[in-house]
Amino acid sequence: MDRILATYRITASESESRVRAEALAAEQSVEMPISAIGDERVLKEIVATVESIRPHAGDFEVVLGFAPQTTGNEASQLMNVLFGNCSLQPEVELVDVTFPAEFEQAFPGPRFGIEGIRTITGVASRPLTCTALKPQGSSVEHLAQLARTFALAGIDVIKDDHGIANQAYAPFAQRVPAVQKAIAEANRQTGGRTIYAPTFSGGGRSLMEQARIAKDCAVKMALVAPMLVGIPAFVELQVDLDIPVMAHPAFAGAARIAPPVLLGKLFRLFGADATIFPNHGGRFSFSRETCLAIARAARAPWRDMRATLPVPAGGMSVERVDDMIAGYGNDTMLLIGGGLLAAKGELLERSREFVNKVAGKR
Amino acid sequence: MDRILATYRITASESESRVRAEALAAEQSVEMPISAIGDERVLKEIVATVESIRPHAGDFEVVLGFAPQTTGNEASQLMNVLFGNCSLQPEVELVDVTFPAEFEQAFPGPRFGIEGIRTITGVASRPLTCTALKPQGSSVEHLAQLARTFALAGIDVIKDDHGIANQAYAPFAQRVPAVQKAIAEANRQTGGRTIYAPTFSGGGRSLMEQARIAKDCAVKMALVAPMLVGIPAFVELQVDLDIPVMAHPAFAGAARIAPPVLLGKLFRLFGADATIFPNHGGRFSFSRETCLAIARAARAPWRDMRATLPVPAGGMSVERVDDMIAGYGNDTMLLIGGGLLAAKGELLERSREFVNKVAGKR
Repeated sequence: MDRILATYRITASESESRVRAEALAAEQSVEMPISAIGDERVLKEIVATVESIRPHAGDFEVVLGFAPQTTGNEASQLMNVLFGNCSLQPEVELVDVTFPAEFEQAFPGPRFGIEGIRTITGVASRPLTCTALKPQGSSVEHLAQLARTFALAGIDVIKDDHGIANQAYAPFAQRVPAVQKAIAEANRQTGGRTIYAPTFSGGGRSLMEQARIAKDCAVKMALVAPMLVGIPAFVELQVDLDIPVMAHPAFAGAARIAPPVLLGKLFRLFGADATIFPNHGGRFSFSRETCLAIARAARAPWRDMRATLPVPAGGMSVERVDDMIAGYGNDTMLLIGGGLLAAKGELLERSREFVNKVAGKR
Repeated sequence: MDRILATYRITASESESRVRAEALAAEQSVEMPISAIGDERVLKEIVATVESIRPHAGDFEVVLGFAPQTTGNEASQLMNVLFGNCSLQPEVELVDVTFPAEFEQAFPGPRFGIEGIRTITGVASRPLTCTALKPQGSSVEHLAQLARTFALAGIDVIKDDHGIANQAYAPFAQRVPAVQKAIAEANRQTGGRTIYAPTFSGGGRSLMEQARIAKDCAVKMALVAPMLVGIPAFVELQVDLDIPVMAHPAFAGAARIAPPVLLGKLFRLFGADATIFPNHGGRFSFSRETCLAIARAARAPWRDMRATLPVPAGGMSVERVDDMIAGYGNDTMLLIGGGLLAAKGELLERSREFVNKVAGKR
């Protein structure tokens, strides 16, 4: 099989570039002096190769080639190969990675993808709408009531705030059936197909228990922060759930993995059907260019791999809907949370406005 | 219960400090406009408080107070509260955190700690020695042979290279029994008590299976990278294993959590009995001050919580042993990996030199 090609930007003088590139190749593969390796097979097959070195804006970029077998087909070990030790070297940034064709046998990517989410929500071609149940600390009754209102307004996906985990004031086991029920009732009333994406959190045992509860009440989507539960747990959970998973970027701010690589390409590889990212012009400082690059990485043709639905979010408002659709196109889910809740007593009206504005763009 | 106090350094002008502090308090707790929250209890008990703001070297530091119940006693949600969304804000850095006294009921910290590791290895008071089996790609036989040599030299702990996971060329199920056997034989020969710490990796199912194998062959320590397997998995694994766990810092380079907080305090809270970190003057750029601060955080008195064994590593050599012990003191484990392997044919002698040098410092 061909090698995995990872591109690193290294902040160091160009005269050091060859030495630094070779040091990085050793660090990320065998992590020992190459001269002390006696085994020819290890030298030839396991040590990462320096594929190219080129200057880039005063620093340089290095492409390393990793043998796919060094990942052991494990998500944790793949992340280790790509950015394990060098995450501790502030001058090293992971800016791109490409995988050989057969690599998808180990990581098949999204199980549903954009198409699967469109089928489940019954949204043929327009952008999708999404909002969040907030704030954490609310009672189950309050969250269910909010969900009912959003569903009556016709929002496609109602997700938990990612900070609503399994706290005592609204535990998963009580919250999820109650919210599901409220949404189902609203759907019956409107003829709509709103779905709920509760937050999955905690260790393997908690996640398994949450998957069981979600199955029992026919939950149709899951919200998971891969970096909080751990990437291997994120991958495993998909097998238990068999519903689309939406990745949340919390704790993913290892600023030295380029966001399009982590939130776009890698989360997609690890199976995210939708990926949330901080939209430009909101509470976060991602540039428009970075946001569009995330969306591109999520949807770009990638052999047989399904496309991941980009979900720009974070300080968005109904006023910005047109602008966002112009930028991201239709295969996008717009997530407005606090911007709807700020309407307080006019939550239903503001939510309907959001829905209608997006529907008008079909 | 008192609040969790988290200190953030924010790179922004001081005139903004009050606004930024309040925005961060909302971001990390309720993640919605405070003005849109109607529930008095949420406002009083759930919204994070701004405890103090003070200038710091041109920027400012903010202490936020988080209600312990917002963590739901989950490791993933605790990390989310501390650094979930704001990990995506490059101007925000988490520089300290302190927990209220009763918080240890949720996270009891190390199960063995320094004392437990000293009991298991039979090392009363001198610093401990540690080395690593490398490189990945080696056969089981080669790794077992290396382990035998290191054990004959009397090294206290032989860990896997953290990149040796569960790859086809030396799978856990074959490697671990073989290395255990080689070490046991050497121990019988020398009367020593060398132990082996294999790498645990992958998702929950893999980890459980690895725990079963490790138990079957009486493995006495585990090497785990919490950020690669996921912090909740790291916490859960300890229950399955019931042996000391050594935390590896791979993929922990979220450079904006101060290393003493993440590798020292938080890894300790989450149960690391020993914590590996890149020593100053090696292949990584951590300063001497940062390294000593990590060691302090690992060992500092913390109510009833056991102390975590600091394990400086990364490009170390036998020549630097004196210097390291002078800096870190006796409650330390010195880890030299590649620096021993570079001796090739004289591996046993170089390893003995390492052991004797440390023993001479008792």
